[in-house]
Amino acid sequence: MKDVYKSSMLYDFYGELLTEHQKEIYEDFILNDYSLGEIAQERGISRQGVHDMVKRCDRILNGYEEKLHLVERFSKTKEDVRRICQLADSDINQKNISEIKMIAQEILDNY
Amino acid sequence: MKDVYKSSMLYDFYGELLTEHQKEIYEDFILNDYSLGEIAQERGISRQGVHDMVKRCDRILNGYEEKLHLVERFSKTKEDVRRICQLADSDINQKNISEIKMIAQEILDNY
Repeated sequence: MKDVYKSSMLYDFYGELLTEHQKEIYEDFILNDYSLGEIAQERGISRQGVHDMVKRCDRILNGYEEKLHLVERFSKTKEDVRRICQLADSDINQKNISEIKMIAQEILDNY
Repeated sequence: MKDVYKSSMLYDFYGELLTEHQKEIYEDFILNDYSLGEIAQERGISRQGVHDMVKRCDRILNGYEEKLHLVERFSKTKEDVRRICQLADSDINQKNISEIKMIAQEILDNY
């Protein structure tokens, strides 16, 4: 099964390291939600060929993430910022402001 | 002249895509602030060899950034979070909280 969220995050970060051909097929499958069969027909290649290409792109993108962990780092930050958003949306008091400051400081310390 | 800040950011993001040998020399030059001559002596290679290796690493790391712009994206976020920190540190009032919320929301929208 495709894990669209994870794949699209990986593609968003590292997609530019794929070839144009790889990008087109991967985008059609992951972002535009075409089936393997539809892509195969459109490109005039075998369904198996499309399948292999998608798997290969998955491996390449996952390989970059295993080395660089940048999706992971961004995801952690996003989670922290989501919490800041929640706090800024709730009661305005010293406790919440202090927590916002602590989270923001932590993000800065991690870069 | 070395731009240590920029190079160390690039290295922090993409350094794991260099070989072990490249990493060692680049770290010595950029992060540990050894001179080309010192590194050459320690490794038993020519000063020119070290120089070429550092330039090559610079090109590789800059090449990844030109394609992926992830240092740029992180830097923008860091700037935004620094502003949140400042706001959380100043007067607690609706205006500042609204600005915190707006900035946090913008960060989330960009991912």
